[in-house]
Amino acid sequence: MIKVGIVGGTGYTGVELLRLLARHPEVEVDAITSRSEAGLGVAELYPNLRGHYDELRFSEPDPERLARCDAVFFATPHGVAHALAGDLLERGTRVIDLSADFRLRDAGVWADWYGQPHGAPGLLEEAVYGLPEVSRDQIRQARLIAVPGCYPTAVQLGFLPLLEAGLIDADHLIADCKSGVTGAGRGAKVPSLLAEASESMKAYGASGHRHLPEIRQGLGDAAGGEVGLTFVPHLTPMIRGIHATLYGRLTGEPGDLQRLFEDRFANEPFVDVMPAGSHPETRSVKGANLCRIAVHRPGNSDTVVVLAVIDNLVKGASGQAIHALNLMFGFDETAGLDAPAMMP
Amino acid sequence: MIKVGIVGGTGYTGVELLRLLARHPEVEVDAITSRSEAGLGVAELYPNLRGHYDELRFSEPDPERLARCDAVFFATPHGVAHALAGDLLERGTRVIDLSADFRLRDAGVWADWYGQPHGAPGLLEEAVYGLPEVSRDQIRQARLIAVPGCYPTAVQLGFLPLLEAGLIDADHLIADCKSGVTGAGRGAKVPSLLAEASESMKAYGASGHRHLPEIRQGLGDAAGGEVGLTFVPHLTPMIRGIHATLYGRLTGEPGDLQRLFEDRFANEPFVDVMPAGSHPETRSVKGANLCRIAVHRPGNSDTVVVLAVIDNLVKGASGQAIHALNLMFGFDETAGLDAPAMMP
Amino acid sequence: MIKVGIVGGTGYTGVELLRLLARHPEVEVDAITSRSEAGLGVAELYPNLRGHYDELRFSEPDPERLARCDAVFFATPHGVAHALAGDLLERGTRVIDLSADFRLRDAGVWADWYGQPHGAPGLLEEAVYGLPEVSRDQIRQARLIAVPGCYPTAVQLGFLPLLEAGLIDADHLIADCKSGVTGAGRGAKVPSLLAEASESMKAYGASGHRHLPEIRQGLGDAAGGEVGLTFVPHLTPMIRGIHATLYGRLTGEPGDLQRLFEDRFANEPFVDVMPAGSHPETRSVKGANLCRIAVHRPGNSDTVVVLAVIDNLVKGASGQAIHALNLMFGFDETAGLDAPAMMP
Amino acid sequence: MIKVGIVGGTGYTGVELLRLLARHPEVEVDAITSRSEAGLGVAELYPNLRGHYDELRFSEPDPERLARCDAVFFATPHGVAHALAGDLLERGTRVIDLSADFRLRDAGVWADWYGQPHGAPGLLEEAVYGLPEVSRDQIRQARLIAVPGCYPTAVQLGFLPLLEAGLIDADHLIADCKSGVTGAGRGAKVPSLLAEASESMKAYGASGHRHLPEIRQGLGDAAGGEVGLTFVPHLTPMIRGIHATLYGRLTGEPGDLQRLFEDRFANEPFVDVMPAGSHPETRSVKGANLCRIAVHRPGNSDTVVVLAVIDNLVKGASGQAIHALNLMFGFDETAGLDAPAMMP
Repeated sequence: MIKVGIVGGTGYTGVELLRLLARHPEVEVDAITSRSEAGLGVAELYPNLRGHYDELRFSEPDPERLARCDAVFFATPHGVAHALAGDLLERGTRVIDLSADFRLRDAGVWADWYGQPHGAPGLLEEAVYGLPEVSRDQIRQARLIAVPGCYPTAVQLGFLPLLEAGLIDADHLIADCKSGVTGAGRGAKVPSLLAEASESMKAYGASGHRHLPEIRQGLGDAAGGEVGLTFVPHLTPMIRGIHATLYGRLTGEPGDLQRLFEDRFANEPFVDVMPAGSHPETRSVKGANLCRIAVHRPGNSDTVVVLAVIDNLVKGASGQAIHALNLMFGFDETAGLDAPAMMP
Repeated sequence: MIKVGIVGGTGYTGVELLRLLARHPEVEVDAITSRSEAGLGVAELYPNLRGHYDELRFSEPDPERLARCDAVFFATPHGVAHALAGDLLERGTRVIDLSADFRLRDAGVWADWYGQPHGAPGLLEEAVYGLPEVSRDQIRQARLIAVPGCYPTAVQLGFLPLLEAGLIDADHLIADCKSGVTGAGRGAKVPSLLAEASESMKAYGASGHRHLPEIRQGLGDAAGGEVGLTFVPHLTPMIRGIHATLYGRLTGEPGDLQRLFEDRFANEPFVDVMPAGSHPETRSVKGANLCRIAVHRPGNSDTVVVLAVIDNLVKGASGQAIHALNLMFGFDETAGLDAPAMMP
Repeated sequence: MIKVGIVGGTGYTGVELLRLLARHPEVEVDAITSRSEAGLGVAELYPNLRGHYDELRFSEPDPERLARCDAVFFATPHGVAHALAGDLLERGTRVIDLSADFRLRDAGVWADWYGQPHGAPGLLEEAVYGLPEVSRDQIRQARLIAVPGCYPTAVQLGFLPLLEAGLIDADHLIADCKSGVTGAGRGAKVPSLLAEASESMKAYGASGHRHLPEIRQGLGDAAGGEVGLTFVPHLTPMIRGIHATLYGRLTGEPGDLQRLFEDRFANEPFVDVMPAGSHPETRSVKGANLCRIAVHRPGNSDTVVVLAVIDNLVKGASGQAIHALNLMFGFDETAGLDAPAMMP
Repeated sequence: MIKVGIVGGTGYTGVELLRLLARHPEVEVDAITSRSEAGLGVAELYPNLRGHYDELRFSEPDPERLARCDAVFFATPHGVAHALAGDLLERGTRVIDLSADFRLRDAGVWADWYGQPHGAPGLLEEAVYGLPEVSRDQIRQARLIAVPGCYPTAVQLGFLPLLEAGLIDADHLIADCKSGVTGAGRGAKVPSLLAEASESMKAYGASGHRHLPEIRQGLGDAAGGEVGLTFVPHLTPMIRGIHATLYGRLTGEPGDLQRLFEDRFANEPFVDVMPAGSHPETRSVKGANLCRIAVHRPGNSDTVVVLAVIDNLVKGASGQAIHALNLMFGFDETAGLDAPAMMP
């Protein structure tokens, strides 16, 4: 049994960590911090947790208390982990950061996209990008994990087999992504109101979204060089879920694409390659730490289409963070992550 | 480890049984029947189950195979359990019926509301109405359980404390209930289409709904005599959830209503009396076997208002059925039913 | 052709006024004010209006300009019309206030519910409560209209025939109301987010809601004395629509209730009594200035159930305001209000 | 005033024709046919129409009666217009077909995609594809109009300026389209249930959809030769709306793309080119006969992204059909089509 802390627990990734950890056999949540809600019981903010965590209250961030944890999750806006991670690592507490703070290896690129200097460039070298399907062994040894973003998770898992095999033109990748509204967080903003976002569909950030450099970095690693990517996210009238529709142009005869995907993910507990001809639905992964994928080649043309779905709050955030924790502490990889998705 | 069968597993209560039983430590699903889908893998119909039950296929109903199970759930339209339950009971298999077949003690009333003769009146005497908060001890001894309907569960739990204490006029009870669309089942009907039921609210069955006699029977038991009930269900644009808003007229000074409710359900693992002044949300029980209740007395008038929410597929059907199973077989009451609700 | 102004046009009732007035043959919108959005074109905030009102921009409230209008709509939070209405009336501009400022005849009751002194008690005597089905003639003569609230419109229209005929016990009225989220306005609040309000149902304000005294006042007029009312509003996961389910106890044999309702509203262009046995759907009035009503007497008991639906932004606000305008200026009552509802 | 008939009026395009024609100053609906609902009043099926068309009932298709109409709309499954159009044309009645029967010029291609022989190949030569932005003059002279499909309308309008100007590689076009559920019609099918389609996103027909050849034909005309197109439609949890996200690869420096689009549609009443940098929302065209378009060139790369939104039932079906009627009969182009979209 290890002790964990959660910094910034009032957002959706915070409550989702609590929901999943409630059933984790090896983890006890010792502290959850929130400046704005300090003193409030977690079940007062999230009534779904009544009967679980009845003693747990949001507290002011206390470095001493966090440092007594074996691991600390950051479910915070960018910048917070920059400020606190170094100290925790020095005291021997491992850090799993769900924010964007350590996802980009290049501090200058980070600064460009986030409009402020990188706050902890000295930690970048040891930070491990926590996509287990790519870097499982490094995660096992890591002290500091950058949990991938939600869009980057779906897009990378979908493109990886094709790029690693060198089958598509890496200069012209297209990722058309659709996300539920929890992707925008729990902030009170007019465009996220039910009255505004329901019964509508729209693209956003078509000219550049912060997840773009993260995806480019990961795909570049797979391709062995820079990639050209057009990434258009869309706001979809649903609570959870990301559907990534990926387009690549084949550079030659690709062989058996279905087999390629099945082999690539054969031993992955959290990637499910659907049967040929399938169209995965986001609801089939609702609440579960899973990416379901299907690959199509319409009309036998030179364009390959990959469909990849995740729950943005689970495989796209809190579930993947717990997966990393399981790897880091030698637990069963699926501990706390074995419940089926909820459907309907 | 016991073996269970599921008859009629293609509907929403069937898949919900599978979702919940996937994590039950004492139960193995041995057979699931469906005439229409015989041969199909369960995960082909319900992709959320891929990776669970990979060997399980829908099969033609086979009495021999079902009789080898320790218990059989019926997740069928009315009439089916009438035909099959008796034989299973004779062979020593316990029966947990999620349909309406054994909910009414009076075969004549059943025939009136269902438009056909009761098919197994001889079993009515031993059938136990499976509302654990009322008949836990009888359920423990039972061989045949009638799992309560979804509306009846919410309405009874909300009115019970008041009726048992004799505080309200039992001749004039009002239950205004709102249900998500899964309450109408998985049948392909025009009014259940997203294009018809979304962005709309409507009452239905205002002049009489089949759950009315069941609710009346249960409330009558609590009141110690016949009750007068007006019950108006409404179709609500959401997938899961029932919100029951109950109105009763106080016959005198009631004392501390909050305390009354807390005491009545003090030892109930699946009823959560919210703090005074609360308004429970259906989403706070989504996927969980819980009824959350709040009691109000607006303006200190003589009208008491009870708000009760459940997930119609869990506490209103499959979860409550598993609760009964746990009681019948001496398992921990919360086995398979301990995960928090999913929110958001 | 008359000129109208709109004060506070950035909320949902503001844009709905513009949508409906775009097709009004007798009205030109001359000014629309907003402190926060002054300078912005209306179609920049509301892209549905692109191609209409292309010259119209939000402006700082300018009393001179407003006073040049024939009529001014207030689509503002409470308190604003208190401050500005008197001056406009003095200059000969008629005022149609969609806020709560002039709905209650008693300034003291207003102060109790709104937590501040009434700002224009001297105008209360001439203010006319703008429910045309009750006070058409007074509206025709009025200079200052208090447009009824959304819940009050549905509840009053549903109870009026019964109370006017003295058929039900006026001391024990129950109004169980369900509203879409636009009822809460366009403010950025966490509970109104799609991620929070979708896929859920909850009551709110069960212990007292600001529409309660307004409804009581109107029902009291119909009953000829004080009434006892329990009013429980519910937040429903849809954009528009109110469904009021009303319960009254008959004091004797009521005669033909269907006929009673049909006769009461026989000449009303915006109230539609549905055939006996109907269950009106909110979507059947989406975008239209209509209240559809059905009356039921379940089981021939002593409880009568009325189902009334409106679009909260139209018959519950902006449409009813335009109806008042039509009456005040002698236009055809249905001018600008004759389009069918949009369904699906 | 002309008389029109509607064949097959019980589906969503049928009721939408009635909703829009209710306000058309030059059109009277004389007959509406439905074999399944013959005898039923239209407002009994569609309560939003109560108070409009009170005399109009669905009738058995009667060729004599239809032939007395000036124009007949077909809102039918494919094959029906094949059987009836020729006779009507001979009798002098003009035909506006909303089905796919006359959209493809090549009867063989039609037969391949629809799995049955073309039923009226002799009429293909005179049928005019009813996209006014391309063939306004031919529509004015036409007797038989093939109203474009919903996806084809959005995709063609978005790609036209680029293809006509020869700016993109016509061999590698990508159209990623998202549609609300009314696109699937009013048929009672399990995947269209609210419980199945809500809170989920999925692609379908990724390997080939019936709208593909229609889009290819139209784009080919614009490009002056065959095009290569990958078209992936997605089912989106909303009632109305199509969002087309289009990707093309520039073949050289394109010049001012914003200007190109604005010039192309400068005189089009029903195409709205949004300001540079915009992201059109489907809700901004809900209920209106409009296509709103924005063009982006992310990162100044060689990939151009076009965002185009329509209401699938209006500009994607019934509205566009009425636009054709207006052109054919010399009415104002916007007659019956001038109301703003409804938002929120």
